[in-house]
Amino acid sequence: MAVYTDVSDDDLAAFLEGYDIGAPLSCKGIAEGVENSNFLLHTSVGYYILTLYEKRVDVNDLPFFVGLMEHLATRGIVCPQPVRNKLGESLGALAGRPAAIVTFLEGMWPKRPDARQCGMVGEALAKLHLAGSDFQMKRANALSIDGWQPLFDAARTRADEVLPGLAPILAGELAHLRTCWPKGLPSGVVHADLFPDNVFFLSGKLSGVIDFYFACDDAFAYDLAICLNAWCFEPDASFNLTKGMALLSGYEGVRELDDAEAAALPTLARGAALRFLLTRLVDWLNRPEGALVKPKDPIEYLKKLRFHQHVAGAREYGLSR
Amino acid sequence: MAVYTDVSDDDLAAFLEGYDIGAPLSCKGIAEGVENSNFLLHTSVGYYILTLYEKRVDVNDLPFFVGLMEHLATRGIVCPQPVRNKLGESLGALAGRPAAIVTFLEGMWPKRPDARQCGMVGEALAKLHLAGSDFQMKRANALSIDGWQPLFDAARTRADEVLPGLAPILAGELAHLRTCWPKGLPSGVVHADLFPDNVFFLSGKLSGVIDFYFACDDAFAYDLAICLNAWCFEPDASFNLTKGMALLSGYEGVRELDDAEAAALPTLARGAALRFLLTRLVDWLNRPEGALVKPKDPIEYLKKLRFHQHVAGAREYGLSR
Repeated sequence: MAVYTDVSDDDLAAFLEGYDIGAPLSCKGIAEGVENSNFLLHTSVGYYILTLYEKRVDVNDLPFFVGLMEHLATRGIVCPQPVRNKLGESLGALAGRPAAIVTFLEGMWPKRPDARQCGMVGEALAKLHLAGSDFQMKRANALSIDGWQPLFDAARTRADEVLPGLAPILAGELAHLRTCWPKGLPSGVVHADLFPDNVFFLSGKLSGVIDFYFACDDAFAYDLAICLNAWCFEPDASFNLTKGMALLSGYEGVRELDDAEAAALPTLARGAALRFLLTRLVDWLNRPEGALVKPKDPIEYLKKLRFHQHVAGAREYGLSR
Repeated sequence: MAVYTDVSDDDLAAFLEGYDIGAPLSCKGIAEGVENSNFLLHTSVGYYILTLYEKRVDVNDLPFFVGLMEHLATRGIVCPQPVRNKLGESLGALAGRPAAIVTFLEGMWPKRPDARQCGMVGEALAKLHLAGSDFQMKRANALSIDGWQPLFDAARTRADEVLPGLAPILAGELAHLRTCWPKGLPSGVVHADLFPDNVFFLSGKLSGVIDFYFACDDAFAYDLAICLNAWCFEPDASFNLTKGMALLSGYEGVRELDDAEAAALPTLARGAALRFLLTRLVDWLNRPEGALVKPKDPIEYLKKLRFHQHVAGAREYGLSR
């Protein structure tokens, strides 16, 4: 959750004068999103999400994110749509920060996803991969394998504060993945953060996907591996094979994995687990005094990593071949 | 800001089945309120605030708060209205906590209140005092002078962590106020926490008052003294006499202070400053690791207290006689 920046009523009113969406009626900071400040904005015209982009987001990436959301919508993916101001711009400035207004999506994210929802997420992820195939902008994944070493370096000396012996485990995993990280897999635009809190459901259907602020170009199967980690484990860190089967068959109902992708899935799942373990670890060790953000538990992802280390093939995740 | 408790989508749907306000469409934790978890709830019928009452609120007080909001509305005060469930109850249970749904009020609270807004708040406070005069339930003010000693005792040994020499300042002020705290002033239901974030404005008018969870029986002029502290100081802790005049004349336009109230105002303002200084100090010293609540600065109220210690009479706050 995050609201880092306060917006004064006067500043908001002035900002909205640049748009054609009426005058502000209410604007409440919401406890969603970790990277940015988000507000649920009601104007005389409707409901919107106002986002102020905080330091962790590179302003040079914003046109990619905003352009992607617009592109995906034209391909039938339900996601927030940037609202353009009177000058035709979808990015402005408010309270000293880059700011955007996007449409409000109804729906609720599942606190305890079930297998049916995992299936729908798999399907949505595959559709997203196909829909992004003709998006022209590119963004490298700063949090893929080349980005993990600097994260590890930042956490190495203090990793034992979280769990004694954690640093050598991370070093070993990183060394292993460097020897076998797959190359040349089918790639394109991936969401790269499709956790349950970024997927809304309404009346038993998937109603929308939000938070494209990690989206980038990478292997599609890596995106799927992130979802296996995020959706298919139980709170006790056990892997739920039924959910894995649902996620993978939902995905393959739209886009079939090729043999190289299927073979790489255990390695990609290890990498995905390590990626979230490392970023959570760095966040944990650097949580600011009095911060409004509750850091997520890194150890959850160590447990997932340990599971993947013993997986011999994608069948163990529920792949049907 | 506060969202302490997560509500699962299933639990929410089940809870709403007890009400006649349709099915949930979205439910977002909002960064408002310090004592409770608040959610902006959209159902197929409309917009509501869902509140889960956390530990710091005594469940035995809830009927008072809920009853007061209903009473004030019948007297023309715009405030959130409890929604009763199919059994006619305005209090239920959700996620293991007492829970209530209230109507959503449009409007925005002023981050930098101006004198005109101070005038409107004074007027609203007086109307609230009159509107509460025939409310039948009673609730003692646990945070009046008798409640300050235990707060001081809880903070005494560690007060110097916040500012060296703070403990003797607090002890001296407490001793002083015990000698001269006024008795027998006109009393009734007071809001007791009418800070800017609890007052909404829309199109230049005061549109509603929220957060009655400190409301209690106490001297009306003490409530006014709380507002002088909360509305009439600048960020540099200087007292803005124009705002003070506006607040007091706004109040007196509806309900005139008697001579005893006017004479007691400097003492009441000192007490109000000490009350928020003490609660903020205790919160500051006891902020939990990883908490989602950013504790408020106690020293802001020490500066206000020091101002009041040099006030000789209510004219210095802007009272016109």
